[in-house]
Amino acid sequence: MTLNVLFAGRPERWDEYEPALTTALAEAGLNTRLATDIPPGEVDYIVYAPNGPVSDFRPFTRARAVLSLWAGVETIVDNPTLTQPLCRMVDEGLRLGMAEWVAGHALRHHLGTDLDVRRAPGDWTQRTPPLARERPVTILGLGELGQTAAQILTGIGFPVAGWSRTPKDIPGITCLPGPDGLKQALASAQILVLLLPDTPETTTILNARTLALLPRGAFILNPGRGPLIDDDALIAALDSGQVAHATLDVFRKEPLPEDHPFWRHPHVTVTPHIAADTRPKTAARVIAENIRRSEAGEPLLHLVDRAHGY
Amino acid sequence: MTLNVLFAGRPERWDEYEPALTTALAEAGLNTRLATDIPPGEVDYIVYAPNGPVSDFRPFTRARAVLSLWAGVETIVDNPTLTQPLCRMVDEGLRLGMAEWVAGHALRHHLGTDLDVRRAPGDWTQRTPPLARERPVTILGLGELGQTAAQILTGIGFPVAGWSRTPKDIPGITCLPGPDGLKQALASAQILVLLLPDTPETTTILNARTLALLPRGAFILNPGRGPLIDDDALIAALDSGQVAHATLDVFRKEPLPEDHPFWRHPHVTVTPHIAADTRPKTAARVIAENIRRSEAGEPLLHLVDRAHGY
Repeated sequence: MTLNVLFAGRPERWDEYEPALTTALAEAGLNTRLATDIPPGEVDYIVYAPNGPVSDFRPFTRARAVLSLWAGVETIVDNPTLTQPLCRMVDEGLRLGMAEWVAGHALRHHLGTDLDVRRAPGDWTQRTPPLARERPVTILGLGELGQTAAQILTGIGFPVAGWSRTPKDIPGITCLPGPDGLKQALASAQILVLLLPDTPETTTILNARTLALLPRGAFILNPGRGPLIDDDALIAALDSGQVAHATLDVFRKEPLPEDHPFWRHPHVTVTPHIAADTRPKTAARVIAENIRRSEAGEPLLHLVDRAHGY
Repeated sequence: MTLNVLFAGRPERWDEYEPALTTALAEAGLNTRLATDIPPGEVDYIVYAPNGPVSDFRPFTRARAVLSLWAGVETIVDNPTLTQPLCRMVDEGLRLGMAEWVAGHALRHHLGTDLDVRRAPGDWTQRTPPLARERPVTILGLGELGQTAAQILTGIGFPVAGWSRTPKDIPGITCLPGPDGLKQALASAQILVLLLPDTPETTTILNARTLALLPRGAFILNPGRGPLIDDDALIAALDSGQVAHATLDVFRKEPLPEDHPFWRHPHVTVTPHIAADTRPKTAARVIAENIRRSEAGEPLLHLVDRAHGY
């Protein structure tokens, strides 16, 4: 039997994804027809991106799963037309790339390399940064992305604490769950990394009140989700020196509007949603594995829990 | 018996080193007099820096060791007045700080964060870097500094190869010894890290011939020693695009003269000899341990092999 797999990502990504998916589906031993124009009633699996062409899932009467290419599913999780199982992407390439972005920007702030990049000719001013082991990092969110970032940061020498809604036990990381844990996690965070999903509970988790709990002069990295931050409160904290610098990869509106104050703030670095770019080769393997599992009656990977929104 | 320990570093470092050494010597159970003005004939141990006040060791007739605060000993190793055992500094703080500098600048070039630091308002150009595992790094020099850097880079995900004069066997690192190994190590080096000592054999190890062996567009990090590089050959390689960028911490003349072309080259980042700053607290423990060993008749740590110059 041939399985009909619809590619419902952005059309301009098809050239990259078509060969990657074709290879991965064949390697998984699946007999599939992969295309962008299958009649909805004949589609068995939907490879989905939130910025792609599909938003009404009702015509896909026999689709057995919606397999997202994105890690974040907040724009689809409340879609009332979606009755099929929804899987988010946890791509090894995305996961590792995200952790590398976090490690690179954490070290950039830790070492103060912006000063070197902008150093004036002849300026021989020597500053010695503390060692990484004297620079505590806190990660909000200890899912697969948070855990991978924590592991790389720990390997560099940073002491890492992590906060999550529910208690976790991860070797080498101080895990601080629940509301009390959040206060404690923020109080020691010389570098704060946001890797939470966007849910009603996490929206503006970084606001005037929580920013005030950070040690003065903290650095903030947000490769997670734009709505985690109250933008105005962050700008006030940057202006007062409470936060030394923020490096932000995600925003409430993307692309970040050219007149948003983040673009010109001297203590903000904007990266254009590149921290967690799904890599077609590794992502295609996850898609293929989930189709294989679905056909074999095995549990799907990275199935979204609609009640919690991720 | 009280041991007389002369501090022969730069006078302006005394305020930092005096408390650190006093604490470390006491913790090692040693009864010492630490000062900057002990008559040479009464000195038992010399805590030495190449830029300090001592260059003639002949008056120190009873000194049992010269304990350098610097990792590099090329300016003292050929001093004919030095007849005492010479130990170089291998400070945990220096070692870790150096590895953090290497990791930070390796990730800076890997991710291309200079583009983010200099990004114009509204520029949403998205580039996805390869994963670290697709970016081979080569370290020339597999001493304690090279090994520590290799370990941190491996933890981040970079495939690491290392070259050393003599064969080494280090888990997780491809070790390539001798002249043939050097060619192989350079051929795969998308990022090349120089952590060799400065000896007659290593001077201008990076020259027109060896630069041509690198893959086109390689990045170079030199936290090792200035004379390892033929400056003119490097500038030619940067101008031709053979080398994409060089981040240099050490130079033939320091401070790097304001008119040196490195300062204004668009593809060179100068850091002012900060990668391997000895940290007084950790360095003082190494000094104290060596005095304890000397007094107990145990082998000294980090004893310099004069024949090889390091």
